[in-house]
Amino acid sequence: MTERLSDETRGPLLDPLFKCGWQMIEGRDAITKTFVFENFVDAFGWMTRVAIWAEKWNHHPEWSNVYKTVTVVLTTHEVDGLSALDAKLARKMEAMV
Amino acid sequence: MTERLSDETRGPLLDPLFKCGWQMIEGRDAITKTFVFENFVDAFGWMTRVAIWAEKWNHHPEWSNVYKTVTVVLTTHEVDGLSALDAKLARKMEAMV
Repeated sequence: MTERLSDETRGPLLDPLFKCGWQMIEGRDAITKTFVFENFVDAFGWMTRVAIWAEKWNHHPEWSNVYKTVTVVLTTHEVDGLSALDAKLARKMEAMV
Repeated sequence: MTERLSDETRGPLLDPLFKCGWQMIEGRDAITKTFVFENFVDAFGWMTRVAIWAEKWNHHPEWSNVYKTVTVVLTTHEVDGLSALDAKLARKMEAMV
């Protein structure tokens, strides 16, 4: 079962992400990062690879794309906040850049 | 050369789009529509097909996706407003739904 991150799990899971550019969103228990690629093909190609993992894990980002820029927001609606799935998907996103 | 839509070309190109749910954005010479699909695979699959045409025509949307919903904004930065390319890409989007 998916659970909201506890005080104990939050640091170990989120700190490594904060170190590579992820941030908390003001007023929401959610993390965000803007990725900038070389061009649209690289940006959308990355989104496509992420999309396949998102569907496989049944955990989908909120994201927007303008040409070579992709802004991602991750949170878990089911628990109304961050879960381990968000950290997992964020790590996958980083691995695929 | 890409040109901003004139008063004469605006109606014929945009009216058919307004009839199928496109709207002007307040304060911008841009059009927007929110597409709702059955699920994420349908939403992202549609985005992928649109992306290939966008790249082929070198005219890219601003768009955001949350699970089965895709919100699109079209405008032409080069002319600081709507051009025939926006109408063309919007028509292609409609054809691929």
